[in-house]
Amino acid sequence: MSTYRAPLRDMHFVLRELADVAAVAQLPGYDETLDVLDPILAQAGAFASEVLDPLNQSGDREGCTWHDGDVTMPHGFKAAYQQFAQAGWIGLPVGAAHGGQGLPQILLGPTLEMWNAANVGFANGPLLNQGAIEAIELAGSPEQKERYIPKLVSGEWSGTMCLTEPQAGSDLAAVRTSAVPENGHYRIRGQKIFITFGEHDMTANIVHLVLARLPDAPEGTKGISLFIVPKFLSGADGKLGERNDVRCAGIEHKLGINANPTCTLVYGERGAGAVGYLVGEAHRGLEYMFVMMNAARFSVGVQALGIADRAYQSALEFAKERVQFRDVAARSPAPVPIVEHPDVRRMLMSMKAQIEAMRALSYVVAASLDLSQKHPDEAVRKEHRAFVDLLIPVVKGWCTETAQDVCSTALQVFGGMGYIEETGIAQQYRDVRITTIYEGTTGIQALDLVGRKLVRDMGASATKVFKRIGAFAKECAACADPRVAALGAPLGEATKALGEAAQAIGMNAMGDLRTAFACSVPFLRFFGIVAGGWQLFRSAKIASEKLGAGEADDFYTAKIATATFYADHILTQAEWLRREIVSGSNDVMALVPQHFDLDRKVAVGA
Amino acid sequence: MSTYRAPLRDMHFVLRELADVAAVAQLPGYDETLDVLDPILAQAGAFASEVLDPLNQSGDREGCTWHDGDVTMPHGFKAAYQQFAQAGWIGLPVGAAHGGQGLPQILLGPTLEMWNAANVGFANGPLLNQGAIEAIELAGSPEQKERYIPKLVSGEWSGTMCLTEPQAGSDLAAVRTSAVPENGHYRIRGQKIFITFGEHDMTANIVHLVLARLPDAPEGTKGISLFIVPKFLSGADGKLGERNDVRCAGIEHKLGINANPTCTLVYGERGAGAVGYLVGEAHRGLEYMFVMMNAARFSVGVQALGIADRAYQSALEFAKERVQFRDVAARSPAPVPIVEHPDVRRMLMSMKAQIEAMRALSYVVAASLDLSQKHPDEAVRKEHRAFVDLLIPVVKGWCTETAQDVCSTALQVFGGMGYIEETGIAQQYRDVRITTIYEGTTGIQALDLVGRKLVRDMGASATKVFKRIGAFAKECAACADPRVAALGAPLGEATKALGEAAQAIGMNAMGDLRTAFACSVPFLRFFGIVAGGWQLFRSAKIASEKLGAGEADDFYTAKIATATFYADHILTQAEWLRREIVSGSNDVMALVPQHFDLDRKVAVGA
Repeated sequence: MSTYRAPLRDMHFVLRELADVAAVAQLPGYDETLDVLDPILAQAGAFASEVLDPLNQSGDREGCTWHDGDVTMPHGFKAAYQQFAQAGWIGLPVGAAHGGQGLPQILLGPTLEMWNAANVGFANGPLLNQGAIEAIELAGSPEQKERYIPKLVSGEWSGTMCLTEPQAGSDLAAVRTSAVPENGHYRIRGQKIFITFGEHDMTANIVHLVLARLPDAPEGTKGISLFIVPKFLSGADGKLGERNDVRCAGIEHKLGINANPTCTLVYGERGAGAVGYLVGEAHRGLEYMFVMMNAARFSVGVQALGIADRAYQSALEFAKERVQFRDVAARSPAPVPIVEHPDVRRMLMSMKAQIEAMRALSYVVAASLDLSQKHPDEAVRKEHRAFVDLLIPVVKGWCTETAQDVCSTALQVFGGMGYIEETGIAQQYRDVRITTIYEGTTGIQALDLVGRKLVRDMGASATKVFKRIGAFAKECAACADPRVAALGAPLGEATKALGEAAQAIGMNAMGDLRTAFACSVPFLRFFGIVAGGWQLFRSAKIASEKLGAGEADDFYTAKIATATFYADHILTQAEWLRREIVSGSNDVMALVPQHFDLDRKVAVGA
Repeated sequence: MSTYRAPLRDMHFVLRELADVAAVAQLPGYDETLDVLDPILAQAGAFASEVLDPLNQSGDREGCTWHDGDVTMPHGFKAAYQQFAQAGWIGLPVGAAHGGQGLPQILLGPTLEMWNAANVGFANGPLLNQGAIEAIELAGSPEQKERYIPKLVSGEWSGTMCLTEPQAGSDLAAVRTSAVPENGHYRIRGQKIFITFGEHDMTANIVHLVLARLPDAPEGTKGISLFIVPKFLSGADGKLGERNDVRCAGIEHKLGINANPTCTLVYGERGAGAVGYLVGEAHRGLEYMFVMMNAARFSVGVQALGIADRAYQSALEFAKERVQFRDVAARSPAPVPIVEHPDVRRMLMSMKAQIEAMRALSYVVAASLDLSQKHPDEAVRKEHRAFVDLLIPVVKGWCTETAQDVCSTALQVFGGMGYIEETGIAQQYRDVRITTIYEGTTGIQALDLVGRKLVRDMGASATKVFKRIGAFAKECAACADPRVAALGAPLGEATKALGEAAQAIGMNAMGDLRTAFACSVPFLRFFGIVAGGWQLFRSAKIASEKLGAGEADDFYTAKIATATFYADHILTQAEWLRREIVSGSNDVMALVPQHFDLDRKVAVGA
C-alpha cells in the first residue's frame, strides 16, 4: 500500500486562486488566516502521512473489539487521537475562548480531506466530536459550554451524536427514546443504533448528544429535544464521578470503516434512566441538529473526496509501475507500464477530472460558509447563506456518489490485484460506500435540494446560481485562449438543460408531488456535475491567465486539459439527465408494488 | 437475508417468447429441449433455493482455510458439490458419450443465472470445471477425453484453468511457466496465481489445465502450450496413484467471493517438475484457451446478471417491509413502506429494467451460440457466429459493469442496514466486484470489441447488427400500441448515435490507434445499452401483442412499463456516450504520465 501524499499543490491553488481565501481572511476575527495557511496545510499533510496513514490498513484489519460493554480500538488509535488533539486539530474552528484556534471553515476543506484520505476510520472520531462541540456551542447554556467544550477540544473527552433508532433511520420523527424530568436534570431511556464512536477507549469520558422525547412532547419532528448524556457524570470541577447508565450493547460488523466503532447504545437499562441535561429549549432538538447537520453533510462530502483522491493516488502509482502489454501504437513488442494504455489513461483522467471538480466546488462552498457567517454586510451574508443552503446537499450528494465511481475505477485499474485485500485499494472501495448513506442518504439530500431548496422558493435561489454559471459560460466562451473558450458552449448548454430540468420539476410539483420527486436524485447529480464543471472551468480560465502572464507551469497546462476532459466526458451527461428528468419522471411510479414480483411469481408451463 | 427465488416467469418468457428456444430445439441432437425445459428450470430453481442459497452467507463468513498446502472449503460445500454433480448439472451441456445430458447452451443462461444468484462462491467451482471439460473436449486426445471428462462430469474430480502468473495478468504473452518433454509426458515448473478452486477438499482429484512454454517455444502468444497437470496421477483404470508435484502455496484474502479458494499454485518445487500431458498441438494453447474463454466470458456476464438479480430481489423485499416517512403525496402522517417513495421506486425500476435487458440480451446470444454451432446451414451458422463473436464481449463487459450499478443501488435501498454485513446485501456488492475483472477486465473486453471485432472487419458485422436494430426500431415505431410505438424513435436515434460513434472510432483507427482505443470502454457500454434496449423493446412489443390477443396478464403490462422506463432513463445515455466518443477521444492522452503527479508535487509557498 502506498503512502498518502496530500495534493497540496491543488489545495493551495483552489484556496488561493479559486476560492479566494484572501476574502475570508478579511472577515472579522480571521485576519491571521493567510499567515497560518501555509504551515497549517504543510503540517496537516505531514500529520496525515506520518501519523494517520500508517494506521489506516492496520486499523481496517484489526477493527474494533467489543467485550462486555467496552470497546477496544485498533492498535495506535488512542495515541493518535491524543496527538491529533494536542496538535490543535480538533480545535481548528473552535473559538479561542474554549481552547480552540478560531480559524475559518474554509480550512476545514483541505484538513478534512487529508484526515479522511489518510484514515477515514480515525477521522470519523474527530468529525463526530466536532458535531457535539457545535451543538453545544449553538444551543448549550454558558455552563454547559464551559464544562464540555474545552474537554472536547483538548481530547480529554470525546463527543457523539445519537440520532438513529431501529424504527427511526432517515425518519427522525419516529424517535422514541424518552426523557423524564427529575430535579433539574432528566432521565433518559431508550436505544440508539449506528452510533459512531459511541464507545471506545481513546478518551476518559464520552459526551453523548441524544435526541429524545419529553413526556408532554407533541408527535413528530416538533417534539424532539436534545440532551447531553455523559458516559461519566462530572462535577463542576470537571472531575469524573459516577458511571452513567448508558451502555454499549454491541458494535456492528460492517462492509467498511472497520476502525470506526458503530455502536448500539442502551440508556437506562439498570434503573431510573441515564442522567441527561437538556440542551437549549425543549422540543427544538431536531432544529439544532439540522443546523449542525449542514456542517456534517459538508464534511461527509469532503470525506468522500478525500477517500476518492487517495484511491486515485494509489491507482496512479500502480499504473506507473505495473508493466503489461506493448504500447498499442508502438512497433516495439516490449511491454510498457499500463499508464501508457489509452483505457487506463482514460480512467486516470476521469478520476482526476472529477476529483478536481469536487475539490473546487467544496472549497468554494466552504468559503461561502465563512462569508455567510462573518461578513459585516447582512445582504452579503444572506446571499452566501442562500448559496450554501442550496449547495450543501449537492456537495454531500454529488461528491459521495461521484466518489463511488472514482473508487471503483481506481480498483479497476489494479485488475486482479485490486480484488485482493492486501493491495489496500479494496479498503477505499469498502470505506467510501457508507458516504452516500450516513448523514442523510443521497435520496434524503435530493429531497432536501428539490423539496426544501428548489420547490419552496419557486426556484429563486437555484435560478440565481444558474444565471451566475450561465454568465461565466459566456465569459469563458469569449476568452482569447481557444482551449478555455471551447469550454464555454458546453457549460452554457448544460446549464440551460439543468434549468429546464428544474423547471420541469417545478411544474410537476404543482401537479403530482410523486412525479416531482421521482427524479430528484438525477437532478442532484446533474446539479453537481454542472456546478463542479463551473468551478473546474473557472480553474482552467485562471490557469490560462497565469500561463498567459508568463508563469510557465505544467500544473496550469494540466488543469486546462483536465477541464477539457471534464467537458467532453463528464459534462456531456447533461442531455441524458435533462431527458431523464423531463421525459422520464412519469415512468417512475408506473407500476404498483405488486408488479415488481411478477417475474418470480409463476413459472409458465412449469 | 431473504431466500433466493428464481425469476422463472421472466426466464420462461425470454427463452420461449423472445430467444426462440423452439428454433434451438430443431437443431440436430437438441430435439428433447422443449420437453425438458420446464422440469429443468423448476428443478434448477429449487436446487438454487434449497441447496445453494442456504450456504451463501455462511460460505462468505467462513471462507476457505489454507493449511500446509491443503484447503478446507466452508461447511456444506463438499456435499453440495456432490449433490450438484449427481443431479446432472455439471453435465448439462456435455455430450452423452461422456456422461452428460447433451443439452443446448441456451439452457446455460437460466441455470448459470440461478447458481450464481444463489451462491456465486459455489458456482465458480462448476464454472471452472466446465472450462476444463470444454478445453479437453476441444483439443484433447480421445484417450484424454475418456480418462478425464466422465470423472469431471460425475463430480468425482474437478478441473481448473491455470493461466495467470505474477507478471502475466491480462497479458498472457508473458507466461513463463515451463514444460520440458520427458518420456511421452512433460515436466512443468513455475508458479500460477489467482487460480479459482486451485485446491479444495470437494473432490478426490483436481485436473489442472495449465498454460506453459516448451523449450523451443517462440516468444509471445504463439509459444504457449496447454497441459493437463492432475493433482494425483492416475492409471488407465482411473485409479488414483502418486501425488503430482503441484502444491497450493496459499490462498488470497479477497474483497468477496470468499467461499471461492483463489490459489497460488507451485509446480515442480520438489524436484524434476510436475508431470503434465500436452493437450492438442504444441504452441496452440492460447488459441484453445480463447475458444473456451468465449464461453467463460459469456458465463461471467450471466454470473453478474444473477448476482444483480439477487440483490434486486433483496432490495425489493426490504423496500416493502421497511416503514419510514409518510407518503409524499398523501395527507396522512402515517409512515409507509419505503417502496411507496418515488426515489426508492426509481431505484427499483432502474434495477428491474437493466436486469431484464441483461437477461434478454444474454439468453438471445446463448440461442445464437447454439445456432452458430449446430445449424445445418453453414451460412446460418456463420451469421450467428459473427453475431456471437461481436456480442460476447458486450455481454461480458456490459452486464458486469451494469451489475455493479445494480448491486450498489440495491445496497442503497437498504440505507444504513445495507452497510451492515449481517443484512447480506453487502455480500452481493463485494461478490459482484470481481466480475468486471476476471476472464478479462472490461478494458480487455472493449479492446476485443473495438480492436478485433469492430476495426478488423471495418465495422461490417457491427453495421449488420446496427441495421437489424434500426429496422426493428422502425417496426416498433409503426406499432398500433402507442406505448410500444413510443419506443421506436429513441431506439432508432440511439442506434444511429452508436453507429456514428463506431464510425468515429474507425476513422481514428486510420490515424492514431491510441485515440481509437481511448473510448473503447464507453463504446462497449454504449453497445450494451443499445443492444439490451433492443431486446427489452422486442420483449415489450411481444408483450403488447399478447395483451392485444386477450392475454390479460400484468406481467406483460409491467414489461411494457419497464421498457418505457429503460427508454427514458437508460437509453438516454446515448447522446452522452456519442459525444464522449466522437469529441472526447482526443482528450484522453492529452497529458503525459508525469502531469498526473503535479497536484501533489509542490506546495506553493509552503
